[in-house]
Amino acid sequence: MANPEVLKVSQERNFNGLLEQRQINAGTLLCVGLDSDLSKVAVRQASTGETLRQFNAGIIDATNDLVCAYKPNIAFYEEHSSEGLDALKWTIEYIKGRYGDIPIILDAKRTDIGNTNLPYARMAFDLMGADAITVNPYFGGEAIQPFLDRKDKGVVVLCRTSNPGAKEFQDQIVKHPQLGDVPLYQAVAYQAAHEWNKNGNVSLVVGATYPEELIQVRRIVGNMQILVPGLGAQGGKPEDIAPALDVNKRGIIANNARGIIFAKTHEGEAFTQAARREAMKWRDAINVYRK
Amino acid sequence: MANPEVLKVSQERNFNGLLEQRQINAGTLLCVGLDSDLSKVAVRQASTGETLRQFNAGIIDATNDLVCAYKPNIAFYEEHSSEGLDALKWTIEYIKGRYGDIPIILDAKRTDIGNTNLPYARMAFDLMGADAITVNPYFGGEAIQPFLDRKDKGVVVLCRTSNPGAKEFQDQIVKHPQLGDVPLYQAVAYQAAHEWNKNGNVSLVVGATYPEELIQVRRIVGNMQILVPGLGAQGGKPEDIAPALDVNKRGIIANNARGIIFAKTHEGEAFTQAARREAMKWRDAINVYRK
Repeated sequence: MANPEVLKVSQERNFNGLLEQRQINAGTLLCVGLDSDLSKVAVRQASTGETLRQFNAGIIDATNDLVCAYKPNIAFYEEHSSEGLDALKWTIEYIKGRYGDIPIILDAKRTDIGNTNLPYARMAFDLMGADAITVNPYFGGEAIQPFLDRKDKGVVVLCRTSNPGAKEFQDQIVKHPQLGDVPLYQAVAYQAAHEWNKNGNVSLVVGATYPEELIQVRRIVGNMQILVPGLGAQGGKPEDIAPALDVNKRGIIANNARGIIFAKTHEGEAFTQAARREAMKWRDAINVYRK
Repeated sequence: MANPEVLKVSQERNFNGLLEQRQINAGTLLCVGLDSDLSKVAVRQASTGETLRQFNAGIIDATNDLVCAYKPNIAFYEEHSSEGLDALKWTIEYIKGRYGDIPIILDAKRTDIGNTNLPYARMAFDLMGADAITVNPYFGGEAIQPFLDRKDKGVVVLCRTSNPGAKEFQDQIVKHPQLGDVPLYQAVAYQAAHEWNKNGNVSLVVGATYPEELIQVRRIVGNMQILVPGLGAQGGKPEDIAPALDVNKRGIIANNARGIIFAKTHEGEAFTQAARREAMKWRDAINVYRK
């Protein structure tokens, strides 16, 4: 007879497990960024909260079969106070309720001293119900322990960010005991993969806007999942991420936000149709390199 | 006749102006951290929101004449969803309404790519009404421009954080064009003070737990304000910050959170009395070094 306790644990959501299964089963590495900037949402409802809920539900219903993950950026919700945060929580519940095999990464880039990361972890994982959170490495690995301790949750560490000025500090050459003289972002990649990953729940952020750096990070971290933002509006292309696929032609969470959720509509086309068209285009364009 | 437009602008709140005036007029460098961890609040009200409001109002009424600033850490509010964030907003309004010459630093450590820092800036400055926000330098100066552009608001950049593991990356030796081979935190200090401070609204965070590093940062940034957390519960002492006072014996925002707001009460003493006693002790202990 099966031990019901063991069964229960194995049925609990686990970020890395969910993500890998989803990438395999749905045949996609595409992640849609739910950066639902209210000023760009065309169809308005009676309230801000209702506008965000309807917009997100429309995007999710139109794209769910094409994605391996969703990534809402909390900045676009918390600027609307409780209305926005309630809509974010609703959105996460909506995905988990209807499309339970798709993991949700809360892009919150929270990080503080250890004592203060406890309430941040409770916010992301318990209050909002996200499967993973993005964190900033500047405080070092000791500080992010409260996130790392949540074994079933993903901790996605910023490594090489996608913005134009990322190099100011991230490319500074530092001495690393195993790697020698390397840019800071490579030291972060090594520490995250080899020192902070005792629970196997760490992954990294490297912008698609820096294809060379992405290849370097892949060399350091083996088959670890890498969240790659910057596709679409920021200029990243499918061919930029192709050389950084892992040995199984997976290992990348390829995020496109604005390029999909605010895709330009053709004559007579709904925003959901435009989003689906673009999501399909991006999924397929990435999959070309996975054959 | 005075131009009413000019008059209006000059009467608007300006973080650095408010802070310096307050340090001079009230004769204090003490900042009380409103890290109102609900699990440590002894006196409970009917709701979480009411508990946070009553607790904060009690601390503020008991300590306002002793402080140059208040610094709520948003982590302890956002874990309670809209109830917590509404209490945070209420607290900021309470301080501005009753004690209008005390600036409020929102300790949020937000930072993303530039596009996403816009809604973060709106959240901190417009929605919450804070006078300043703490930000993380890992993305570089280009990304935090949306914060820097808000001339009347303070942008408080993490430099050497107070946590035990801060050295992992912050002490890595990098090459800086002006400073030569220096730890990363010193490069951050230089960039913040000399490259990002076009609007004169930048300050820095250096933990009281690292007195030697604090002195190094003072040498690099001149009379810039330095927010110094880590006093009290984290182990920082008044004598640790004394050598880093600026030439006017000011220039430091000396933050103590848990050591004051959760001060151990004596027999028959209210928590507000304990907080006032500790705040007075810390104000005076710091002022010893300012004579």
